[in-house]
Amino acid sequence: MDTLKLRIITDGKNLGNGILKVDGFINHQVDPKLMDECGREFAARFSRLRATKVLTAEISGIAPALTTALHLGVPVVYARKQKPITMPNEVFLTLAPSHTKGRTVELIVSPEYLGREERVLIIDDFLATGQTILGLARLAQAAGAAIVGVGAVVEKTFEGGRALLQSLNVPIESLAIITDMSGGKIVFAD
Amino acid sequence: MDTLKLRIITDGKNLGNGILKVDGFINHQVDPKLMDECGREFAARFSRLRATKVLTAEISGIAPALTTALHLGVPVVYARKQKPITMPNEVFLTLAPSHTKGRTVELIVSPEYLGREERVLIIDDFLATGQTILGLARLAQAAGAAIVGVGAVVEKTFEGGRALLQSLNVPIESLAIITDMSGGKIVFAD
Repeated sequence: MDTLKLRIITDGKNLGNGILKVDGFINHQVDPKLMDECGREFAARFSRLRATKVLTAEISGIAPALTTALHLGVPVVYARKQKPITMPNEVFLTLAPSHTKGRTVELIVSPEYLGREERVLIIDDFLATGQTILGLARLAQAAGAAIVGVGAVVEKTFEGGRALLQSLNVPIESLAIITDMSGGKIVFAD
Repeated sequence: MDTLKLRIITDGKNLGNGILKVDGFINHQVDPKLMDECGREFAARFSRLRATKVLTAEISGIAPALTTALHLGVPVVYARKQKPITMPNEVFLTLAPSHTKGRTVELIVSPEYLGREERVLIIDDFLATGQTILGLARLAQAAGAAIVGVGAVVEKTFEGGRALLQSLNVPIESLAIITDMSGGKIVFAD
């Protein structure tokens, strides 16, 4: 998606160690128009899959998942990292190692909102190691739901997440694919 | 907002102790169309204030704040509760007691995205005790920004938040105002 890649070149920063700072338009300050365009693009790329639900993880997955769900006309569920008091005691819970946080986080979804009849599209802001998305996939599998696709706003191919997700055997779409961030560079796949 | 009140009556649950379960359409599973309507309504009610930025707190404020920002055509910033590695060391930070979490949480905003020239509209999912919104207001004040309004999707008047926020001297708009949840009831202001 050219508008996204242009924005990353203009406002993104390579902080080294594979860390891409995009908190001016994706994950702290959010450009709602850009997120809406990302959602429209995901909806177009995945429209044939007849998803009934979008699944993401709090926190920074919420914005692109919400706009995708809006354009698909289906609900979005964001997995919680702490169980709120409004959630029943029996939940779907999995552990996912967080590369950027340097620790393992819980991903929790209420069985009220993820059932075996669902066709789940997983959306997140980043596809890096793939561990968060794989955790979301385990939650959907625990619910007996079908996973129909995976979408990421930004993919960093050099962290290997796409290979990890191949076992899901679903289409994986990323809107900006970065192949190299060594030496301060930001190199896109095309 | 009638569609919202109808949805609370249909799908909301009074769990007792003033706890309203709306996690089927607002804060775990999200109805993106309803959130978009809430954002459109906030944008209409606050349009005269010429806000330059929407400010909210992660996690459940993100959805209504994003759609409000989309309809106003301005960026949205969500205060983080943990400082990410992409954020500079010098930040705006305040502490806010969380009624539902039973502890104090940090609210953190990068000075990169909140400056003294901003006209800030604060949006959150709930106005209950008002402590989170007051914390967001302190962050905006620390940045030297002007606070121009406060919007909440759901207000629980019996927790006193509106009185706490009167000192801000700005318009406060709630899309569904609940005055009484005693005895299992959900009573709206009108």
